[in-house]
Amino acid sequence: MTTSHLPRIAVAIDLGERSYPIWIGQQLINDPATWAGLPKAAAALIVTNTTVAPLYAQRLQGALANTYSKIHTVVLPDGEDHKDWATLNLIFDELLGQGADRKTVLFALGGGVVGDMTGFAAACYMRGVPFVQVPTTLLSQVDSSVGGKTAINHPIGKNMIGAFYQPQRVVCDLDTLQTLPEREMSAGLAEIIKYGPIADMAFLDWIDANLDELLARDPKALAHAVKRSCEIKAWVVAQDEREGGIRAILNFGHTFGHAIEAGLGFGVWLHGEAVGCGMVMAAELSLRLGKVDAAFVARLRALIARAGLPVRGPIIDAADNAGHYIEHMRLDKKAIGGDIQFVVIDGPGQATVCGAPDAMVREVINACCA
Amino acid sequence: MTTSHLPRIAVAIDLGERSYPIWIGQQLINDPATWAGLPKAAAALIVTNTTVAPLYAQRLQGALANTYSKIHTVVLPDGEDHKDWATLNLIFDELLGQGADRKTVLFALGGGVVGDMTGFAAACYMRGVPFVQVPTTLLSQVDSSVGGKTAINHPIGKNMIGAFYQPQRVVCDLDTLQTLPEREMSAGLAEIIKYGPIADMAFLDWIDANLDELLARDPKALAHAVKRSCEIKAWVVAQDEREGGIRAILNFGHTFGHAIEAGLGFGVWLHGEAVGCGMVMAAELSLRLGKVDAAFVARLRALIARAGLPVRGPIIDAADNAGHYIEHMRLDKKAIGGDIQFVVIDGPGQATVCGAPDAMVREVINACCA
Repeated sequence: MTTSHLPRIAVAIDLGERSYPIWIGQQLINDPATWAGLPKAAAALIVTNTTVAPLYAQRLQGALANTYSKIHTVVLPDGEDHKDWATLNLIFDELLGQGADRKTVLFALGGGVVGDMTGFAAACYMRGVPFVQVPTTLLSQVDSSVGGKTAINHPIGKNMIGAFYQPQRVVCDLDTLQTLPEREMSAGLAEIIKYGPIADMAFLDWIDANLDELLARDPKALAHAVKRSCEIKAWVVAQDEREGGIRAILNFGHTFGHAIEAGLGFGVWLHGEAVGCGMVMAAELSLRLGKVDAAFVARLRALIARAGLPVRGPIIDAADNAGHYIEHMRLDKKAIGGDIQFVVIDGPGQATVCGAPDAMVREVINACCA
Repeated sequence: MTTSHLPRIAVAIDLGERSYPIWIGQQLINDPATWAGLPKAAAALIVTNTTVAPLYAQRLQGALANTYSKIHTVVLPDGEDHKDWATLNLIFDELLGQGADRKTVLFALGGGVVGDMTGFAAACYMRGVPFVQVPTTLLSQVDSSVGGKTAINHPIGKNMIGAFYQPQRVVCDLDTLQTLPEREMSAGLAEIIKYGPIADMAFLDWIDANLDELLARDPKALAHAVKRSCEIKAWVVAQDEREGGIRAILNFGHTFGHAIEAGLGFGVWLHGEAVGCGMVMAAELSLRLGKVDAAFVARLRALIARAGLPVRGPIIDAADNAGHYIEHMRLDKKAIGGDIQFVVIDGPGQATVCGAPDAMVREVINACCA
C-alpha cells in the first residue's frame, strides 16, 4: 500500500461471541491483508450484482485467491424489486450446484440489497455458513451492512422474511463510493443524517458544515461520516441486538419511508430517498406531539433537501392517500396488534418509540405529500 | 382431567435462555392447562396439514381460545414433497394477510414436515416470532420436534435451507398416535431404535422386549419410548445445539437415508423408512471399518425388519447405483470439501463421525440394495 491513502479505521461491534470489526479505508478490497484471519474453508462464494460485478468482482476475487482455493461468483439482477425469493434462490442454486459445504464463506459485494440477501442466504444455507459484508454503496457502509439484519421482501411488506445473523467482518472500501451514481450518494446521506437527530446533534452540525465535501466525495469527509455513523450504530446494536427496545430508534423515518416504498412498488424510490422524506414526516409528527419545535423540523427538512433528497411524499392513492399510507404502516414490524409505532424525536439528539392518533398521522401525511 | 390417563411427563431441554420443556402424556391438546404460560400475544396461527386438520385442529383451537383472542389456521398440503418454498410461503401469506405482528405465536400441529416448516417460518417471519411444537406423529414426537432444527428442502438436497430455532414448548399428545397409519408408526420406530446403538444399549434391549406393545400402541409403552428418546436427544442437543460436534451422531442412518429420499424423489419413501434402511447400511459400514461385529449388525437388521421397516435399499440407477448414492451423499451437510462423513457405531451404544474409502462405501451399497 502506498502512503497516499488514509489510515485504516476500525470500529468494533461488541456482541460477545458474535463480535466483529468494521474496517473503513481506501484500497481495501484489492489488499490481500484485508482478508486475513477469516474462517478457513475450501471455497468462497462472492455474491454481487450486474452493476457492481464489472467494477469490483475481479479485484475481490484476486485478493481472496491466497485464502480460498475455489472462488465462485454469482451475479444477481440489480435493484430492490429483485430482493425476493426467486433471486435468493439463485444463491442457493449456485451453492448446491458447486457442492458447497457448511464451511463455505459468502462475500456480499454490493449495496444493501446484495448485503441483505447474501446475509439471509448465509443464515439459511445448511442452517448457517459464515459471511462477510463488503458494502460498495454509502447507504450500506453506514447502515445496512452493520448489525446483522438480513431479509428479503414479501409483496405485501418490506423485509418481512429474514433473520438476525451477524457477519464475520464488514469492509467499507471508500474508493467504491467514487463510482456511485449521485442519486445513490444522496440516498446514503439520508441514513447518515438520521444518526444526528436520534443520537448526536454535534454530528448533525458536522454534517451541516461538511455536506459540500461529502457531496464532492472527499475521502477524508467520507471516512469521518462512515466512521461516526458506524460508531453510533454499533453503540445501539450492542445494547439491543434483536430489536427488543432501543434498536428501533434506528428506524427513524423508516415507518413512513416503508409505506412509500411499498405503496409505489419496491425500487421506484430508492430506500434512502424514502427514508429522507420519511424523516421529514416523522419530524412533523414529533412537532405535533409537542416534542420538538418548528425550527428543528425546518432545519432537518433543509438539510435533507440540500443532500439531494425528496422532502415531499408521493400521492399513492388520490382517493385516500393518508389511508393508503396508514394501511401499509399497520404492517410495519414495530406495529403491535395493528397499532402503528412511530420513531419520533424526543428533543434534539434523542429518539423514542410511541403511538400517535390516526387523525394526527393523517394530518402529517396530508401536509407532507405533494 | 380424569384419573384414567397416564401422569404427564416433563423432559427439559437445557439451552440457557432458550431452554424449554417437552410434555408427554394423554389428552394434552384439548386441555387448556397445557397452553398456560406461553408468550402473550393478540393472535395465534395454527399451521397444520390436510390430514391432521380434520382430526385435531378444532380441538387445539378450542383449547387455545382462553389464551389468544384471534386464532387462525392455515392448512398445508401433506407430504415431504411439499416441504418447499411455495408451501412455506402459504404460511407467510396467511400471516401477512392477517396483519400478524412480531408477537404472534405459531403452533405446528402435525408431523415432521409441518414442524420443520412452521419452525422455519417462525424463525424468518419478521426475523423471528415464537412457536410451539405439537407433534402428532411418532417420528416427530421422538425426534424432529425436539432440538430446534428447522428447514425446507431444495430440489438438490434435503433440509438444505433452514435455521436453528428453538420452540417455546413441545407438547407430545400420545393419543394422536392412535390415528397414525401403520407405515408412519414404523417410520417413527426407526428414530426410536436409532437412540439404542448410538447412546443406550439398555434402551435397545427394552425396545427389543417391548416392540409388540409399541406396535399395538400401548400408551404406557409409547410413553416410555417417547420419554427415553427425548431424554437422549435432550442430552445430546444440550451439549451441541448447532451441531458443531457430537450432535451429528443423531444422524445415524441419515446419510444413506437422505440419498434414498433424494434419489427416489422426496415422499416416495417416508423419512423414517429411509433412516431404517440407512441404519442397516451404516451398521454394515461400521462392521467393515472393524468397529462392531456381525452379530451386532444382524441384531439391528432383525429389529428394524420386525418394526416393519425396509432393510434393503432401492436401486436408484441401474447403471451405477452406488455412484448415484455417493453423488447424493457428497451434498450431505456433514460433508467437508466433498468428503462424505458417516455416523458409524464405534462399539455398541456409542457413535462417532468419520470418513470411509469410496470402495468400501460402494461395497456396502451394493451389498445392501435389492
